[in-house]
Amino acid sequence: MRLYLGLVHYPVYDKNEKKIASAITTVDLHDLSRAARTYAVKQLLIITPLTDQQRLVERVCRHWITGFGAHYNPFRKEAVELISVAPSLKGAIDSIGALEGETPFVVATDAREQEEKGISFAEARSMVHRDDLVFLIFGTAWGLAREAFGMTDAILEPIPGAGRYNHLSVRSASAIILDRLAGNHSSRDF
Amino acid sequence: MRLYLGLVHYPVYDKNEKKIASAITTVDLHDLSRAARTYAVKQLLIITPLTDQQRLVERVCRHWITGFGAHYNPFRKEAVELISVAPSLKGAIDSIGALEGETPFVVATDAREQEEKGISFAEARSMVHRDDLVFLIFGTAWGLAREAFGMTDAILEPIPGAGRYNHLSVRSASAIILDRLAGNHSSRDF
Repeated sequence: MRLYLGLVHYPVYDKNEKKIASAITTVDLHDLSRAARTYAVKQLLIITPLTDQQRLVERVCRHWITGFGAHYNPFRKEAVELISVAPSLKGAIDSIGALEGETPFVVATDAREQEEKGISFAEARSMVHRDDLVFLIFGTAWGLAREAFGMTDAILEPIPGAGRYNHLSVRSASAIILDRLAGNHSSRDF
Repeated sequence: MRLYLGLVHYPVYDKNEKKIASAITTVDLHDLSRAARTYAVKQLLIITPLTDQQRLVERVCRHWITGFGAHYNPFRKEAVELISVAPSLKGAIDSIGALEGETPFVVATDAREQEEKGISFAEARSMVHRDDLVFLIFGTAWGLAREAFGMTDAILEPIPGAGRYNHLSVRSASAIILDRLAGNHSSRDF
């Protein structure tokens, strides 16, 4: 698999659909990097233009990679090592392009049904399993702003719950989507 | 579906396999209740014998159900309303029994492969979909202590990641397992 994960802090919406740069939530760094390592993701890019927030991410990573945390919990180190910081969505796409010598296919995720660029779990899963270079991005706060979708090649269908309620945390949603796209499922499971 | 979720804070292990009562992590209450609401879980039982920790859970719930949070984010209210506190695993099982007039089938989850009482995702999924009364429990800290398994009817197989790394947060693991057992999957997805 050549799967990259991105957690976008700008451009995203606040609860009034105003475009903002959201703050880093440190538990996101832990949960997403652990899920990324579990599903063999190559890198988790934390996207924020705010330099103080970039420093915060780097400080958390240092603690677990070379600081006290490295001895306290080596499993956390293995996860956090996947984290990298990018100043923008375009910067993240370029950095993956530079690493892989190829432009990634960017798949956005959203809790709302999209009218354009829709892609099903089955389609996205086949891309991942035939080793296409895929960059899967998640929004924080109240979701990716419209302009972010302009930079993506496809938008993944929403997670189908049991009813109309669809307000998962980005930690839960990213775990479920990774399991659906990259997880080991035997056909007898469903 | 008649599915109940339990988050166990005692008895669990710390990193040295010493039996402890772990502290409540408030983000767990949010993430697990949102996932529970998404997948039509009937109740999320937060299990802790520590009265100060029970009060903390009740305080968080009050904030979102009748306090400031109820207006700030009504979607959070819908999720948090599923939360209930139980002083012990036995107390939680008894309380479900009293509500449903039937003893639930208790399924524990664990990151480690278990030698006894194993149940596959497929088996657990069919129980949930044929409306069996199922109580699915998750450990916090370093996982459920052995004596908790003594009170369970079955232990779910571990989530198969892409390799040997298997250190998901309880927030990620519970989301993935709910999606596997109660989610809407079309057979073409896999």
